[in-house]
Amino acid sequence: MSAPLTIWINAKFAEPAERLLIEGVRPHRLVCSAHSSVSVLTPGKPDLELVEADIAFGQPSVEQSIECKRLRWVEVTTAGFTRFDREDFREAMHRRSAVFTNSSSVFAEPCAQHALAMMLAVARQLLPSHRDQLTDRPWHFVERRADSRLLNGQTVLLLGYGAIGRRLAELLAPFRMKIFAVRRKTYSEPGVHVISEERLSSVIAEADHVVNVLPDNPTTVNYVNARRLGWCKRGARFYNVGRGTTVDQNALIQALESGRLGAAYLDVMEPEPLPPSHQLWEAPNCFITPHTAGGRHDQDEALVRHFLANFAAFTRGDDTGWLDRVF
Amino acid sequence: MSAPLTIWINAKFAEPAERLLIEGVRPHRLVCSAHSSVSVLTPGKPDLELVEADIAFGQPSVEQSIECKRLRWVEVTTAGFTRFDREDFREAMHRRSAVFTNSSSVFAEPCAQHALAMMLAVARQLLPSHRDQLTDRPWHFVERRADSRLLNGQTVLLLGYGAIGRRLAELLAPFRMKIFAVRRKTYSEPGVHVISEERLSSVIAEADHVVNVLPDNPTTVNYVNARRLGWCKRGARFYNVGRGTTVDQNALIQALESGRLGAAYLDVMEPEPLPPSHQLWEAPNCFITPHTAGGRHDQDEALVRHFLANFAAFTRGDDTGWLDRVF
Repeated sequence: MSAPLTIWINAKFAEPAERLLIEGVRPHRLVCSAHSSVSVLTPGKPDLELVEADIAFGQPSVEQSIECKRLRWVEVTTAGFTRFDREDFREAMHRRSAVFTNSSSVFAEPCAQHALAMMLAVARQLLPSHRDQLTDRPWHFVERRADSRLLNGQTVLLLGYGAIGRRLAELLAPFRMKIFAVRRKTYSEPGVHVISEERLSSVIAEADHVVNVLPDNPTTVNYVNARRLGWCKRGARFYNVGRGTTVDQNALIQALESGRLGAAYLDVMEPEPLPPSHQLWEAPNCFITPHTAGGRHDQDEALVRHFLANFAAFTRGDDTGWLDRVF
Repeated sequence: MSAPLTIWINAKFAEPAERLLIEGVRPHRLVCSAHSSVSVLTPGKPDLELVEADIAFGQPSVEQSIECKRLRWVEVTTAGFTRFDREDFREAMHRRSAVFTNSSSVFAEPCAQHALAMMLAVARQLLPSHRDQLTDRPWHFVERRADSRLLNGQTVLLLGYGAIGRRLAELLAPFRMKIFAVRRKTYSEPGVHVISEERLSSVIAEADHVVNVLPDNPTTVNYVNARRLGWCKRGARFYNVGRGTTVDQNALIQALESGRLGAAYLDVMEPEPLPPSHQLWEAPNCFITPHTAGGRHDQDEALVRHFLANFAAFTRGDDTGWLDRVF
C-alpha cells in the first residue's frame, strides 16, 4: 500500500455518519476543517489545511481548490455545483488529472419523491384541507371532491432530464401519464419522450404538469419566463425542485394571478430564505417548501457512503467506478 | 328487442354526465327521483316511482328495494354499501334473481392516489411547511430536511386488501417497500405478503406505515383499538381511507399523544362532518381531509360510464360481464 492520503473535509456530520467516515478511510489521514458548516449548501471558507490535502470532501473554496496543487479529487456534498462550474477550476483540475464529483445521486431520490408529493398534494387538495383544519374547520366535502384530480392520463413535462427526472419518471410509471422531457441532448428512452427546445412551445401547451428540475447555470437563468409561461395550458400546475434562478418570479406571479397557471409548488426560490414579505408567499395557489426536496433523515450517512464508494474507486485507480463524476 | 326497461335514478349528475346517461340508456325509460341528492353518500328517501322500476341506480331506500318486486338490478353510486349489507335485502334480491353492484372501481383509483399523497405529504413534511407559509413564514430548512424521509425500504401494512389496496400496492412498487396486507382469505400475490389476523401482532410491530382500508361492517367496528395500536412500532404513521367506524378514536388520540404513533392522516372519521370542537382536530400530528379520498373531478362521468358498462351486461344477459358485482 502506498503512503497515507490526506483527506480534508469541511462537512459536519452527526454520529454515526462521522464514525462511519473515520473508520471507512482508515489508515488514511482525515483532516477536519475548523470552518465546518452544518448545512451542506454553505460554501466553505479558505482553510490553510487544504494545502496538504490529496482529497477534498465537502464545500471547499473554489479559488483555493484551484491553487492547491496536491488535490487530485474534490467531492462536493451537494447535487448543484454552480460555484465550481468555471473554466479556471476545470482547467486547473484537468492539468493535474484531478477528478470532480458531486453527490447528485444522494439527492435524486428525495427530490423525485418530493416532486411526486407536490403533484399529489395539489391533485388531492391536501393543502386547502390542512388550512381548513388550522382555521375554523369547515367541512368542504363537496367542493374538495369536485376539485380532486387523478394523475392518470394527464401529461407531464419535465424541464431538464437528469437523475431526478429519470427517477420521477419511474415513480410516475404506474399512473400511466404521458411523460415528456426537454433537454439539449435528445434520445428516446422507454416511457419518456425526450424533446428538444424547438418542440417546447407545442408540448408545453399540452402539459397538465410542468416540473422544473433545471440546475443553475448561465444558460438556465430565467428559463421559465413570461414567454414560455404564456405557452402553458390554462390551469397547468408548475413545480420547481431545480433552482430558483431558473424562474422569472414576477412572470410566475403574473401567471398565477391571471389563472394561466392553476397552482405552483416551489421548493426553490430566489433569494433563499425567502423574506417573509416576499410576494411569492401570497400569490394565488402558490405553495412553498423551504428547499427541503433533497432532504432525507439519513443524509449524512448517505453522503458518507457515497464518498466511501468513490474513495474505493480512487484508491483502486478504477476510472470506471466513480459515482456522479462531473469530469 | 324486448320491452323498454324502467331505470330509476336518484343520483343528481351534472352535464355532460347526465346527457351521457340519457343517451346511453335510450330507448329505455329513465325516471329521475324528485328526491335526488347532490352527494352520492346520502341515503335516498322512499320514492313511489321506484315501484315501477326494473333497475335502481343511486342510493335507493333499502326497505323499499326489498319490497319492489320488479327490481332486478340495484347499483349504488358508492364503494361502501353498509346500509345494504343485510340478510333481508340479500334474500329478497336472491329470491328474484336480482343483481347488486357497487361502484368501487370508480373510487379505488382516487382512494389509492389519496393514500399515497398522504404518505408522501407526511414523509416530505409538506403540512408543517404549509402551516409556516400560513403563519409568520419562518424558514425551517435544517429541521425539515432532517425530518424528511424516503419511503424506500420501509415497511407498509394494509389493513384490508381489496381494489384500493391492490392499486396502492401498484403505486408503491417503484419505492421498493416491504408490503404486507391483512385479510381473512390469505393467498400470495406478487409484491404483497398477504397475512392472516394471527400474524398481525408481529407484522404490525415492523410497519413504518399502517394504511387502513377496512370497510364498515359488524366485524370491523373499532378494529384499530388500543390493543392493536399498542403493537405498533414507535413513531409509526397511520392513515385511514376506509371507514371511521373501524377506529377507536380515543385510543388513536392516546397513541398520538404518547408518541406510539408519529402521525395520523385521516380521511374518514366518526362522525362526519367532524364537529369543529372534536379532539381529533387538535391531536398531535393528526391531519384531516374531509372524506375526499374517493373524490375525482370526473366522478359523475365515471359513475355513469360504470353504470352503462353494467347496463350493457344486464341487457345482454351476460352474467360474467359485471363490474363490481357484490352478489
